[in-house]
Amino acid sequence: MSTRPWQEVVQEKREIQQKLVEPHLCDTHEKPELTKAILDIDSVEGLTGLLANEKVSAKYVTRTNCLTEVFFEEALVEADRLDQYYQQHGKLIGPLHGVPVTLKDQFDVKGADSTLGYVTRAFKPATRDAAIVEILKSLGAIILAKTNLPQSIMWCETENPLWGLTTNPRDPNFTPGGSTGGEGVLLAMQASMIGWGTDIGGSIRIPAHMNGLWGLKPTSSRLPYMGVPVSTEGQEHVPSSVGPLTRSLSSLVTVMQTVIDAKPWVLDPKVTPIPWRRESYKDIQTRPLTIGVLLDDGVVKVHPPIERVLNETVAKFKAAGHEIVSWSSSGHKECIEIMDQYYTADGGEDIRREVQAGGEPFIPHVEALTTRGKAITVYEYWQLNKQKLAAQQAYNDKWTLAKGLDSGRIVDVVLMPTMPHPAVPHRGCKWVGYTKVWNFLDYPALSFPAGKVDVSRDPVAEHEPRNDYDAWNWKLYDPKTMDGHPVGLQIVGRRFEEEKLLGIAAVIEKLIKS
Amino acid sequence: MSTRPWQEVVQEKREIQQKLVEPHLCDTHEKPELTKAILDIDSVEGLTGLLANEKVSAKYVTRTNCLTEVFFEEALVEADRLDQYYQQHGKLIGPLHGVPVTLKDQFDVKGADSTLGYVTRAFKPATRDAAIVEILKSLGAIILAKTNLPQSIMWCETENPLWGLTTNPRDPNFTPGGSTGGEGVLLAMQASMIGWGTDIGGSIRIPAHMNGLWGLKPTSSRLPYMGVPVSTEGQEHVPSSVGPLTRSLSSLVTVMQTVIDAKPWVLDPKVTPIPWRRESYKDIQTRPLTIGVLLDDGVVKVHPPIERVLNETVAKFKAAGHEIVSWSSSGHKECIEIMDQYYTADGGEDIRREVQAGGEPFIPHVEALTTRGKAITVYEYWQLNKQKLAAQQAYNDKWTLAKGLDSGRIVDVVLMPTMPHPAVPHRGCKWVGYTKVWNFLDYPALSFPAGKVDVSRDPVAEHEPRNDYDAWNWKLYDPKTMDGHPVGLQIVGRRFEEEKLLGIAAVIEKLIKS
Repeated sequence: MSTRPWQEVVQEKREIQQKLVEPHLCDTHEKPELTKAILDIDSVEGLTGLLANEKVSAKYVTRTNCLTEVFFEEALVEADRLDQYYQQHGKLIGPLHGVPVTLKDQFDVKGADSTLGYVTRAFKPATRDAAIVEILKSLGAIILAKTNLPQSIMWCETENPLWGLTTNPRDPNFTPGGSTGGEGVLLAMQASMIGWGTDIGGSIRIPAHMNGLWGLKPTSSRLPYMGVPVSTEGQEHVPSSVGPLTRSLSSLVTVMQTVIDAKPWVLDPKVTPIPWRRESYKDIQTRPLTIGVLLDDGVVKVHPPIERVLNETVAKFKAAGHEIVSWSSSGHKECIEIMDQYYTADGGEDIRREVQAGGEPFIPHVEALTTRGKAITVYEYWQLNKQKLAAQQAYNDKWTLAKGLDSGRIVDVVLMPTMPHPAVPHRGCKWVGYTKVWNFLDYPALSFPAGKVDVSRDPVAEHEPRNDYDAWNWKLYDPKTMDGHPVGLQIVGRRFEEEKLLGIAAVIEKLIKS
Repeated sequence: MSTRPWQEVVQEKREIQQKLVEPHLCDTHEKPELTKAILDIDSVEGLTGLLANEKVSAKYVTRTNCLTEVFFEEALVEADRLDQYYQQHGKLIGPLHGVPVTLKDQFDVKGADSTLGYVTRAFKPATRDAAIVEILKSLGAIILAKTNLPQSIMWCETENPLWGLTTNPRDPNFTPGGSTGGEGVLLAMQASMIGWGTDIGGSIRIPAHMNGLWGLKPTSSRLPYMGVPVSTEGQEHVPSSVGPLTRSLSSLVTVMQTVIDAKPWVLDPKVTPIPWRRESYKDIQTRPLTIGVLLDDGVVKVHPPIERVLNETVAKFKAAGHEIVSWSSSGHKECIEIMDQYYTADGGEDIRREVQAGGEPFIPHVEALTTRGKAITVYEYWQLNKQKLAAQQAYNDKWTLAKGLDSGRIVDVVLMPTMPHPAVPHRGCKWVGYTKVWNFLDYPALSFPAGKVDVSRDPVAEHEPRNDYDAWNWKLYDPKTMDGHPVGLQIVGRRFEEEKLLGIAAVIEKLIKS
């Protein structure tokens, strides 16, 4: 247990952060022409003036309270080094030369804390870079900062007693989602180009959805988790994935390809040594797709704008000659019932120890998680694994048998909502069944920006609630306050089909732009 | 709990087996010229007269008590079907057309029991073929029988109260090793061409070593485990691997390639979708290798013939221009200490339940396993996983840094003993540290036939015991009774390097033959 009041630790961490941020604050409104130029930079390929980018956005960014550890000074030094390299050698140092990167406050960066939103982890700097950080640096990327996340990570919003509440850049009363919420905000505000998160139930895809971003949760062993401490660490049966968030698909593809080309399995033995398969990415873009569409998981009905945007997207696919197949939610309930038992198989001991060691209060959702049930035995845990395997096998069979009526082709991808609602007021998120099932199955899933709430087209509708989750969700819907907020949709592939999924995303991007 | 005396169940199972075997018994000595011909068939490629093979070997085979479930009648019917197919179509039905295959009594074959050596699992036939069985059948293989294993599988010899004790074909007082002991015997006696086993601590490699066979333990997710019940099922952190045993390397390569070409990941979502990489298999055969050599793990010193055979093999590598590097056992002790805690993390509950449900007695080694320690909590289990990951990362770093002094190349493969002794009298095996560390690390490892005990060259030597295991092992050595018994050695690659490992095996085969 801590010998120091938790409030003191919090105050000291925040003061240090403030001092590191202040010299870099300047108001974007002073130079509107610069702002415009910067807002146009959405992709790694279009990168110019990155340091200006970091500077002008700083003031806006701090208002959302999305930052935790700040490396602006180090970033300037590194940028100078890269400039010198370029001047001396006449070429870039690597494929991510000068690309500004930020990371959820969970990835070890040597010399900085990885707090996971826990007070007890403050002032315990990492002694080695995470494998992904080491790779990104070797490719030329510049690490700007680390970003906020919820206490314990296990929550789809972004709040903890150490760093406070992160707010949605479009409305401070709204959540930006979570748990990779700080990244969602920072990217939406053009203050980073590639954000790194983790996803054990939707934590990359949910902030991507709420902030108009592309967010990829790969199969868990595709990217390196080495040097990324996590809550309930050692629970490996519902695996957490490392993945990127970006404003453009091209950035997402570039970073996935360059990181995998760097052979992360050499550094981290948990990574599966599958090279980047360019042909899978390309080939899938050359033929009609067979798309399974799931609108409703049968538990929580989606808000009207989500339904509209999904229907519009499906219509575009059809018009372009792709094949649409109805996808049922059979198996989802069973998967979720099993997976929920993993999160609390220790009776909440892991999280409780961390919070108690720091002495800070619980945030309500996390407290509920630690008191949900008592610990099971290791024998019972093994029986749970057997159930898990059977459910995974059944879902695999379901997919193998799902074929397009016209083409006879096995479904290429499932298209569905990411969440049953767009951004909502703080503490409004409850149901993550649309995202978490893919963590249990360990299938790659991508949330992409598909549209926006439009008060004029998405009126309040009647709906008879099916259960408490459904009633809660339907009451959240308010087209006036939600107007203009992004709506993301999710595409899902089979295990290790990241390249194919991104190829399909490229097809989608063209359709949406058209 | 069973309502029926366990002895009754055993009697009924054995009577059924006897009836199925009897019609096929004939004494090889009646037709010596046929025996000779059959003994020459060591590879899938050289396959002819397979049904004669099955017939003439039956009598010898039954003396070793290596069989459990018997499908001779079905095999004859299937062989007729294949013959007809060939006559009609003028081509083979698949790449394993007519190849006789047997499986450890753990692989589900529809309609037959998978006993794992437990009485309680008798008369509970599987309702679906294991994924590997389905694939083998689709490739044209003929399933002849299932084979014996120890009660609970968790033992490196082959004995259980249901099927009894399996003996070594060279000496009934000796064990053939285990847990895939029945396969080891059957293959050594030319009664099967490809044997399928599982390996969670050495269970494929140990019987391969003691019976002069090739036995591959792949990375655990390379081949499908679906439909293969296992003891302490749900314990997935020290993973068990499915793998083949054969008399020839060419059979091993053929079967690995054809099974992986059949895309087992479509059937079993736990299989990693890495295609068979022909170029890895071939390329490694075209350049000098850098070979790490480990003679002694520092815990149990190997018997003189093992040391001699290893030294002879190393000398051949050197003479052929390959680079030899000393490989230390650093990290092995830590890995083994962590992994041993997994086997009994449930306090032995899983195995105890199975044995008690059948009512039969424990075999001594298994009883010791169930009483070794009390169950740990799920929270402690998660902490154990963290230790595991750290040990795996440390070993990965060790390998990445291990380079040949002359070439500067990272070590391609580790060459070392499979066991510290050749076949020994029943209940003599105690130390499996040479094999089990690779299960913990989940690296592919292959045991190959490297030589034989030679009483004239391997005299008893002095050795000051280091510990009880070492003292026990050294006392076992008896060159007179062991004379002529096979000595295997083990080669080990990095995760998922099965093709490279088999390519190196091809280099070894040439060296040994030369």
